[in-house]
Amino acid sequence: MSSDKIVLYTAPTPNGITVSILLEELKATYGIPDYEQLNPAGRIPTIVHHDVPVVETSAILLYLAAQFDKTFKFSFDPIQDPYNYSEQLQWLFFAHGGIGPMQSQANHFIKFSTEDIPYGKKRYLDETKRLYGVLAIRLQDRDYLTGPGRGKYALADIKAYALVSKAWFIDIDLGEWPPLKKWVERIAERPAVQAGETIVTW
Amino acid sequence: MSSDKIVLYTAPTPNGITVSILLEELKATYGIPDYEQLNPAGRIPTIVHHDVPVVETSAILLYLAAQFDKTFKFSFDPIQDPYNYSEQLQWLFFAHGGIGPMQSQANHFIKFSTEDIPYGKKRYLDETKRLYGVLAIRLQDRDYLTGPGRGKYALADIKAYALVSKAWFIDIDLGEWPPLKKWVERIAERPAVQAGETIVTW
Repeated sequence: MSSDKIVLYTAPTPNGITVSILLEELKATYGIPDYEQLNPAGRIPTIVHHDVPVVETSAILLYLAAQFDKTFKFSFDPIQDPYNYSEQLQWLFFAHGGIGPMQSQANHFIKFSTEDIPYGKKRYLDETKRLYGVLAIRLQDRDYLTGPGRGKYALADIKAYALVSKAWFIDIDLGEWPPLKKWVERIAERPAVQAGETIVTW
Repeated sequence: MSSDKIVLYTAPTPNGITVSILLEELKATYGIPDYEQLNPAGRIPTIVHHDVPVVETSAILLYLAAQFDKTFKFSFDPIQDPYNYSEQLQWLFFAHGGIGPMQSQANHFIKFSTEDIPYGKKRYLDETKRLYGVLAIRLQDRDYLTGPGRGKYALADIKAYALVSKAWFIDIDLGEWPPLKKWVERIAERPAVQAGETIVTW
């Protein structure tokens, strides 16, 4: 018997909390899904649902939204609302293929590298800040990255927030981009975000 | 009046050819869309359709498929076939957030960096090869990355192919991974791929 329960393999990293934030949002809104967190044996985050694993943080967000966000509180309808759905994909891919890898390389050279490589530190810190600047321009006249008008808190915000909110780790001061700082503070206030961020404790 | 014509802003890079390959596949199969290529003024690739720009290579693929691949020859139905659609997203995000940025950093340190940084060369070459190994394991008993059985040539193949087929640029020998090499050769034979790869010439 395959239950509807979700198992989340995770760790307290930006990618890990991305998924638990959405799970907490869905629970707060719909009362589903039932999920438990396990210690990871391999790559994280991974979810298993109906015995099928789903990997890649952003693909997990889109899977969970398709399965559980039936009234599109945190996402957009791919069929009825294709332009906003595409915009959501565009910002997810921007965060997933841009901010994620670049910030991760900055973390590596600044905090973890076994050799001191000033070139690497500067390259990835500059690139991370450049990408933050792109977010800040987008947020100049909006509250959230996607959706009509001032936007709607949705998947791309969760994905990007989990990264940008950890900028302090490499001493990036979000005060450089006031709209970005306000956006982080706005999202950080959400109870489900606080629950999702803190839930990963073994 | 907004025509159905697509304008593609592009350049002969892996991301650029990714989009023109899919456009050529769609033309060969459906006779649509009508498109023209223009010199880019900003980031590439970008498409403009019905006066709306779409950016991020993988998001462009998903947009074009949703608009034009109505019988799912190169993609999967998000509603009727959610598991294969999710698998497609997982491999797209893997290529977009993994192979793309890592191979691009390897290219940078090996070919373009203004300083000789052996640490950077090794780090990103190793990581690119590790990710190629993941593809090769996936392709051990399949012809294509996604779809049931031996798989179906689809968006994730196009996205990953445009990167892996340029591995020669940093002297990666695909002979290290026979299933990956065969997959590249299989895709390279397609007339639409050849058209998409060569069409970018100003």
